[in-house]
Amino acid sequence: MPETFRPVDVVRVAGKSRSSDLDRAATEEPLEVRLHGRPFAVIMRTPGADRELAAGFLLSERVLLSADDLGTIEYCTNPANLENPANPANLANLANLANPANLGNVVTVTLANWTPEALDRLLADRRQVTTNSSCGLCGRLTIESIRADAPPLVCAWTMAPAVVASLPETLRAAQAVFRETGGLHAAGLFSPDGALQDVAEDVGRHNAVDKVIGRALMREELPLSARALFVSGRSSFEILQKALFGGIPLVASVSAPSSLAIELAEEAGITLIGFVRGDRFNIYTHPERVS
Amino acid sequence: MPETFRPVDVVRVAGKSRSSDLDRAATEEPLEVRLHGRPFAVIMRTPGADRELAAGFLLSERVLLSADDLGTIEYCTNPANLENPANPANLANLANLANPANLGNVVTVTLANWTPEALDRLLADRRQVTTNSSCGLCGRLTIESIRADAPPLVCAWTMAPAVVASLPETLRAAQAVFRETGGLHAAGLFSPDGALQDVAEDVGRHNAVDKVIGRALMREELPLSARALFVSGRSSFEILQKALFGGIPLVASVSAPSSLAIELAEEAGITLIGFVRGDRFNIYTHPERVS
Repeated sequence: MPETFRPVDVVRVAGKSRSSDLDRAATEEPLEVRLHGRPFAVIMRTPGADRELAAGFLLSERVLLSADDLGTIEYCTNPANLENPANPANLANLANLANPANLGNVVTVTLANWTPEALDRLLADRRQVTTNSSCGLCGRLTIESIRADAPPLVCAWTMAPAVVASLPETLRAAQAVFRETGGLHAAGLFSPDGALQDVAEDVGRHNAVDKVIGRALMREELPLSARALFVSGRSSFEILQKALFGGIPLVASVSAPSSLAIELAEEAGITLIGFVRGDRFNIYTHPERVS
Repeated sequence: MPETFRPVDVVRVAGKSRSSDLDRAATEEPLEVRLHGRPFAVIMRTPGADRELAAGFLLSERVLLSADDLGTIEYCTNPANLENPANPANLANLANLANPANLGNVVTVTLANWTPEALDRLLADRRQVTTNSSCGLCGRLTIESIRADAPPLVCAWTMAPAVVASLPETLRAAQAVFRETGGLHAAGLFSPDGALQDVAEDVGRHNAVDKVIGRALMREELPLSARALFVSGRSSFEILQKALFGGIPLVASVSAPSSLAIELAEEAGITLIGFVRGDRFNIYTHPERVS
């Protein structure tokens, strides 16, 4: 299992002074996700909670609609299976995932109640989809299609303003790897009273969200109707999409939301909060959920 | 042409006070990039410098290796051409890009000296590639293959520590949309004396880098051997990959680099600097380029 951070040499400069030191950097490694042994996706991620990441990612991709669709998620433990002779240009080969040192970088997922024909269709569909460079949106999902796929969220609970204001500090206190490296995104799931229920860290903000939602999926806890999601970075369209598929009715962050994130939150019945700093924040949609 | 930010309603909360206001959010919209009219990729981006974004993205994808490979990059201006009947599940259709209001969300790129057969192979190759959720790495490129594709950068210039320390403030002063929205990433190209040569903003950090490098490509200014790249967020593997393909020998940011970014910078001959704050910063690789 690759570690979550690594020692690195660094030259520290402060004004005119300059000194060599040993520092720690957050690990970034490719994770190949396979379906029934066949390559599906490669995600650049920080090792840790890889099975949860795969589950959350496949939920976002609509390969899994609920825990009922999930069979097993296992690390590939046989070096002989790591190579993918059918596709020598595959990243798993290029990245030397076939090196036994990289056994921790391949997970294979089995689906419940799936036939080989259905899997063929799924993989063929995926190849049809135009790919995307900057986020996990894989071409199929727009607000319109999402709306058909996931009805707006409804929930009765509210969160007190002081609780909203407490989320960043609670999350930061739980970020173990951030303390070591200063360089990781985090996502936290909170109950309405502000108690932290789960946290994940990753070099990718989207991955951190997939990890906490994927863990809930594996525990059969979806939809997360009584949870708020707090993310360390900006709220993009894709973060809101992941929250919707996880059934989370409140999303907050320290930073700004994008226009499309606001549109999707409005349509999806999600309360979207940004710029949570000190006792101040902005509510962009569904403010009735802040008491 | 969609605008770079949009008015949004907001409820501002400060302690016990609560007021309604009008705010601005950075626009996030899908951009479909087509090759000779055929769908290649969809990128979630902030409108503006779309042709530059497409050029930089195609350089990162190794569809373009230099300006010599580029024919034209044009917005699709004929609504009748927006729909893609061959692939009704295509995002362009789902996202209603076929709506004339979205004419600004589709660009089509032609390649120089390309045959229909070569284009078929390129699009087929792309469909083979496993896709990735959290960054632009599209499955083909790892440090090993990158090393074969792009030799390490060599350059003679150095940057003074005081100049490194000045980069964040210079970049911030040039971020027009950030001032309006507080929510955009930026990438800046600097000369060794710290003068800002170009800047781009985007909801996606990777897109901002693609925009400045793509613009240089379109101006036939690659390789950018006498430029430093400063990015507003973390330095990931993918940011270093883009810098390498653009020929940029120094990359700095306000935040932390990942382990794989450090490895690639070391291999590629790129000076990688992080945590530029006040007069302090850390040099992770090739410190000889800071005088």
